[in-house]
Amino acid sequence: MADPRFFRRAKPISLADLAEIANATIAGNVAPDQTYVDVKPLSDSGPKDVSFLDNKRYVGSFNVSKAGACVVEAAYVEQAPSGMALLVTDSPYLGYALIAAAFYPTRADDNTNVSANAHIESTASIGDGAMIQAGAVIQAHAEIGAGAHIGVGAVVGPGVVIGTGSRIGPNTCLSHCLIGDRVIIHGGVNIGQDGFGFAQSSLGHLKVPQLGRVIIEDDVEIGANTAIDRGAGPDTVVGAGTKIDNLVQIAHNVRIGKGCIIVSQVGISGSTEIGDFVMIGGQAGLTGHLQIGSGSKIAAQSGVMRDVDPGTTVGGSPAKPMREWLREVAIIERLGKKKGR
Amino acid sequence: MADPRFFRRAKPISLADLAEIANATIAGNVAPDQTYVDVKPLSDSGPKDVSFLDNKRYVGSFNVSKAGACVVEAAYVEQAPSGMALLVTDSPYLGYALIAAAFYPTRADDNTNVSANAHIESTASIGDGAMIQAGAVIQAHAEIGAGAHIGVGAVVGPGVVIGTGSRIGPNTCLSHCLIGDRVIIHGGVNIGQDGFGFAQSSLGHLKVPQLGRVIIEDDVEIGANTAIDRGAGPDTVVGAGTKIDNLVQIAHNVRIGKGCIIVSQVGISGSTEIGDFVMIGGQAGLTGHLQIGSGSKIAAQSGVMRDVDPGTTVGGSPAKPMREWLREVAIIERLGKKKGR
Amino acid sequence: MADPRFFRRAKPISLADLAEIANATIAGNVAPDQTYVDVKPLSDSGPKDVSFLDNKRYVGSFNVSKAGACVVEAAYVEQAPSGMALLVTDSPYLGYALIAAAFYPTRADDNTNVSANAHIESTASIGDGAMIQAGAVIQAHAEIGAGAHIGVGAVVGPGVVIGTGSRIGPNTCLSHCLIGDRVIIHGGVNIGQDGFGFAQSSLGHLKVPQLGRVIIEDDVEIGANTAIDRGAGPDTVVGAGTKIDNLVQIAHNVRIGKGCIIVSQVGISGSTEIGDFVMIGGQAGLTGHLQIGSGSKIAAQSGVMRDVDPGTTVGGSPAKPMREWLREVAIIERLGKKKGR
Repeated sequence: MADPRFFRRAKPISLADLAEIANATIAGNVAPDQTYVDVKPLSDSGPKDVSFLDNKRYVGSFNVSKAGACVVEAAYVEQAPSGMALLVTDSPYLGYALIAAAFYPTRADDNTNVSANAHIESTASIGDGAMIQAGAVIQAHAEIGAGAHIGVGAVVGPGVVIGTGSRIGPNTCLSHCLIGDRVIIHGGVNIGQDGFGFAQSSLGHLKVPQLGRVIIEDDVEIGANTAIDRGAGPDTVVGAGTKIDNLVQIAHNVRIGKGCIIVSQVGISGSTEIGDFVMIGGQAGLTGHLQIGSGSKIAAQSGVMRDVDPGTTVGGSPAKPMREWLREVAIIERLGKKKGR
Repeated sequence: MADPRFFRRAKPISLADLAEIANATIAGNVAPDQTYVDVKPLSDSGPKDVSFLDNKRYVGSFNVSKAGACVVEAAYVEQAPSGMALLVTDSPYLGYALIAAAFYPTRADDNTNVSANAHIESTASIGDGAMIQAGAVIQAHAEIGAGAHIGVGAVVGPGVVIGTGSRIGPNTCLSHCLIGDRVIIHGGVNIGQDGFGFAQSSLGHLKVPQLGRVIIEDDVEIGANTAIDRGAGPDTVVGAGTKIDNLVQIAHNVRIGKGCIIVSQVGISGSTEIGDFVMIGGQAGLTGHLQIGSGSKIAAQSGVMRDVDPGTTVGGSPAKPMREWLREVAIIERLGKKKGR
Repeated sequence: MADPRFFRRAKPISLADLAEIANATIAGNVAPDQTYVDVKPLSDSGPKDVSFLDNKRYVGSFNVSKAGACVVEAAYVEQAPSGMALLVTDSPYLGYALIAAAFYPTRADDNTNVSANAHIESTASIGDGAMIQAGAVIQAHAEIGAGAHIGVGAVVGPGVVIGTGSRIGPNTCLSHCLIGDRVIIHGGVNIGQDGFGFAQSSLGHLKVPQLGRVIIEDDVEIGANTAIDRGAGPDTVVGAGTKIDNLVQIAHNVRIGKGCIIVSQVGISGSTEIGDFVMIGGQAGLTGHLQIGSGSKIAAQSGVMRDVDPGTTVGGSPAKPMREWLREVAIIERLGKKKGR
């Protein structure tokens, strides 16, 4: 089971209830009132555990797994070890996520109030049920929403607004920003510092006042040590439901649409606009002032220097349509092998 | 206007005064005593706002802008909408920067003193007018210059020296370093930790004592979550007026000259020396012990493995002269298209 | 000498003692009881200083160095300036490291106790001789090992265990993790936050509970602002003696073996397993679910998309055996030059 020092497990759940939770149908010869106590990886499960199969790489582990129940696609039902209960769904990873959340509901914090060791300016407003941990600093006129959670050592700068139920990680620094509801920001994140804007002058690089904000819409998640600069005039915007991984750089005036996935160490340069449901692989870099169409995908380590059409996939540096890039990679490989003989 | 929660605007400014501030000449049929109240993007401006045109991409917005005044190059005067006052200069971005700074002068902090919730060791010295915010820790024998600003939760390690008027961001950690005057360091930056130096031994990777410092010269700016290791014996040095973006890695013994621009997520390996006024694009990586000549430019995502001559531009990974790299990119593209038919 | 504000030097050491410390033999005409007072770079040394030569680039500096003594390989003895004492060893960098550590032994902290300005929950346990600095927060049921050092503003989350003699840097955030003995974690590191796991659903990206931990084994070092996510079910593991540089991203379920070297800004995607003594160059990226064999080497900026065999070296993006990659680079270069004529 998950380490009880860190996770608190709920009660056993019957097969019938698991099927309902996961929107799955039951297969296999197991009674629907059979109960299970935990979720575990395939290779590590026993008869009271629920596991899942979501990646062909792990079919071998599935074939010999001792898991009592498993969330799978219909195609794999035939291959299941005998005696395993099957929870059949088109989306086994989603089914697993729902079941795992049932076994391990979000832990209510032991102390849901305001630490005596937090520093809160008198002009700040704190919503009902908000939790503010030790060492956090809430500066003048900041507004903390109901049920929000401000982690240890986090800094909520002057005038910053945080929506209801949002969670701000430890030692994260927020300034010049408006944060929506149910937003999750991990530790060490910096949001709202002034962007990298300098005008050449005879006296060197002159700082250009950065007069915009950062707007983080509802249900966004932002990974550890990510940096998001505030706008230069327009705002920097992260659209609702977008998920950003660790160590990502988002420059001033960038606008990101809804439901995007931005993987770790991506860098997005100033004023680039990204549509909805865009996926950007790890370490990709985008130059400034680009238009990235909705539904497009950008491969890991890509170097995007031109606009990307909606719904297309690009790769390589400089990035081009995925098919072209893969063809070039294959041609170079062939040339290399020819030459080597 | 800029969000008044975060920015405080100064009084209206006349066209004549704007021209003086921006070192611009006036064109268009507007009286020099006409006043303006704010700066705004072209597409968002009204008759009392000042905007600017600095990038061909935005000529379309300029043509239909409702801005009352606009900072432009002479070449665009003819295309201006009728009634717009024009502030003509060779450096419109610089002109805008100067005007924006006039409308939004650096905000004097409300509390310019030392927070009762800062922790300051008795042997530290604090200059006149220095501001030290809640949760900041100033360790033994550190010296904070006059008018310096130490942000919430920042750590100024033993013996660290910070010059006059410098600003240290929230939760930034400084050790083994000397910081010049008017330096700006954003949040989450780590400076002076010991570098990544290990000697192979029969007992594993043995830590090599790192006996140098980090020297940050005057007028440097360093972006959020950047890391700069102290020298192994020599110092790590960042020259005067150099601007470093977010999430940059600078290894031990690196020496960076004056007036350089180093964009986000760049990594510079140990003992590499960089001349003056070098520009390094985002996500570029430089191996160790290189000489990068003054005035050279390194394209984004480059992988620099050899010395770079002064004044040259390189790109690609491994990096080579820009022209060669672009030619190779074009040839590969042609091969890919030929093969595809 | 090293700046006395930051480093405290020990007493002079005789040539005979230096030879013993460095496991070196003496060459040159200098009496074994001659004493030396410091270590310095070749170009900066005087007659009372010890230096070292470990890189061909610096033979020129060696030839004209005024260092009183130098740690070198036997091959360079003949080229030494007259009068220089030579400490001859096959591993001059290791010899230097040992000598430098003798001149600058790890400084005992002036205050080896618990700051009155640290916040420690009553259920936490603090080992003998542990040092906890101002602003650090030790949460419920956390265990701090004997002689461990918790830096300013560091956050040790609920239930986290830290081994004996480990050092946690300033403003570092630890949760859901077990840290071994003699581990060094620099400032701004985030360990144990939940990984980037989302299941697609009709309601958007649904967060998948992350029920694993992070296990950091003994003698690991982790650089500034690095992020290590906890496992999704299995643990994320960093093996004993592995050294990780600044700004590295390690995703959920990654398992890293013993004695690896992972250079700055590397990104390792979820569930990838890395053997022992693997070296990964700066800015390299690895996709998920890979097997990276023991003793393999991955060049800087590589994009690894396939398994890597033990003992092999790969480079390029997509990465391939080093020889193949270098051949391809050479062919492209030749094509580019041909075309240019």
